[in-house]
Amino acid sequence: MGHEMRVGVLGAAGMVGGQLLRLLEEKALPLAELRLFATARSAGLAIPFAGEKLTVEEVGPGSFRGLDFAFFCATAEAAREHAPMAADAGCVVIDKSRAFRMDPDVPLAVPEVNPQALRRHRGIIASPNCSTIQLVMALNPLHRAAGIRRVVVATYQSVSGTGREAVAELRRQAEAFLAGREGAAEVYPQPIAFNLFPHIDEFGPHGYSGEEVKLVEETRKILEAPGLRLTATTVRVPVFVGHAEAVNVELDRRVTRQEALDLLRAQPGLVLVEEGYPTPLAVAGSDDVFVGRVREDASAENALDLWVVADNLRKGAATNAVQIAQFLWKGSPQSCG
Amino acid sequence: MGHEMRVGVLGAAGMVGGQLLRLLEEKALPLAELRLFATARSAGLAIPFAGEKLTVEEVGPGSFRGLDFAFFCATAEAAREHAPMAADAGCVVIDKSRAFRMDPDVPLAVPEVNPQALRRHRGIIASPNCSTIQLVMALNPLHRAAGIRRVVVATYQSVSGTGREAVAELRRQAEAFLAGREGAAEVYPQPIAFNLFPHIDEFGPHGYSGEEVKLVEETRKILEAPGLRLTATTVRVPVFVGHAEAVNVELDRRVTRQEALDLLRAQPGLVLVEEGYPTPLAVAGSDDVFVGRVREDASAENALDLWVVADNLRKGAATNAVQIAQFLWKGSPQSCG
Repeated sequence: MGHEMRVGVLGAAGMVGGQLLRLLEEKALPLAELRLFATARSAGLAIPFAGEKLTVEEVGPGSFRGLDFAFFCATAEAAREHAPMAADAGCVVIDKSRAFRMDPDVPLAVPEVNPQALRRHRGIIASPNCSTIQLVMALNPLHRAAGIRRVVVATYQSVSGTGREAVAELRRQAEAFLAGREGAAEVYPQPIAFNLFPHIDEFGPHGYSGEEVKLVEETRKILEAPGLRLTATTVRVPVFVGHAEAVNVELDRRVTRQEALDLLRAQPGLVLVEEGYPTPLAVAGSDDVFVGRVREDASAENALDLWVVADNLRKGAATNAVQIAQFLWKGSPQSCG
Repeated sequence: MGHEMRVGVLGAAGMVGGQLLRLLEEKALPLAELRLFATARSAGLAIPFAGEKLTVEEVGPGSFRGLDFAFFCATAEAAREHAPMAADAGCVVIDKSRAFRMDPDVPLAVPEVNPQALRRHRGIIASPNCSTIQLVMALNPLHRAAGIRRVVVATYQSVSGTGREAVAELRRQAEAFLAGREGAAEVYPQPIAFNLFPHIDEFGPHGYSGEEVKLVEETRKILEAPGLRLTATTVRVPVFVGHAEAVNVELDRRVTRQEALDLLRAQPGLVLVEEGYPTPLAVAGSDDVFVGRVREDASAENALDLWVVADNLRKGAATNAVQIAQFLWKGSPQSCG
């Protein structure tokens, strides 16, 4: 294997795919070759990359042969159809969809949190859901040092997590609202402009939404804490980019604010904000996760309150996928190709 | 005393004052007389009321003599200056500011929750903070039935809670943002359009904001539970009207979802949403508090998750103040005038 990698991207026309291409333009990975794929609907599109135009190829059985890595920024259905073939062809698939996240044979990885999981892959690696990634980045150092007893999370999630149509819907509805008209809700079940709703993904039999279940299950898998107790309310808010989370965490022992600050400061990829606090608008475009408002919870013996913010398209999606490839390429080259 | 009341309003030009006048136009109270007051800055303004124009008088030492009730929709400073004089003159002051809320001699009342407190007033009654009112409306039936052990709240608070300037700032910034320009932040410390921040009121020495401290202290006083354990993260969101709260409540015993629904349904003033969930936009203009997404918390033995939404200008402010007057007028007329 050489020092440059051959890379494919499935779903380059979407928001996460676009963000991924921007990271590759910024030379996040040493590219020998870059090929873009999509289903028949988007095949033939010309997508700008580093001053050129790349034509999107229709994805098919032999697409990923000869590639080292394929980033899947597509639906779970597309991932289920094409990832096993790509892996069989010797290409390592890094999948952003939910298709394989809970598969016990597939690592679910945040490289700064559970890199050890990456060494066990069989050709497919799942990247977690956006709201999970930023949560585990903040929980990890606290869990390692003091053991998490229980977590209560409320999220503030931007529309870019849904995709381009949702971004367009927020803009369209906001313009209509400001002009005194009503903008139709097409992507979302409720108006999103100057409104918010606790409904991300479908509701299950126990009243939790799919997003809330993902947050619980993925956090357990990444922290290797199968019994971890966590409850969540996930809420869509009228923000374009950036997710925030109000996190209350009870630990097995008392952790002072000062100790918490030291622990959080030592977590790679996590930026501790001590003066002021992070906001979605302020962190948009950054590859880090930001934590602020670190407080000892006055209502419980061993608990802390945190405010965690990240760019859901960067660390919450494209950046994490690229970091997985970086880790495998540098950390264990025998896994690739 | 007759069947109609003589009423004064201090701060009628503000957002809560305006909402209060709308309630009075809707004949929420039987009026014999209505007089509007303000400090010198707004004195002389003509304010429309029921097809007429009322001139705002400058508030002074004798202003409230001869009135049964005065609604104070002004600053804490104005309340501290004028409420004692009004009360001495025999007028019952219902104050929306924080000035007297934690005064042990002043009832802090939500009529559907702690009406008993109203019988003990000495001429001044405080109406709680908007975020507290909707919270205690949902907590009260659970606390009475099963005893609250601990509450974790994250709020989603609209800009109308700050006032007219904040509403104008959100609109101005949103218009600028959509036009590709940047709108200046003047009222708030951060941009609010398509953004959010966990900063309402000043931060104290323990890292809690003033709004978070109010939520804790006022809830304890209203529920008459001085040791109640509650932690909160209060967040300003780009919504014009309506506050939402993600509430996790641990109880002394297990309460099933079905029992919780029955308890919440029986709380006057609280509307249980079983199909779907309430949103700020949907409840704007309503006098009720709405609760939905009632779930048994899978992370703890005796806990529930709730989603509580109300119009912060109506039940969160003007409606609650008017209901206090209604209760005193009908429930114990000897307290008035």
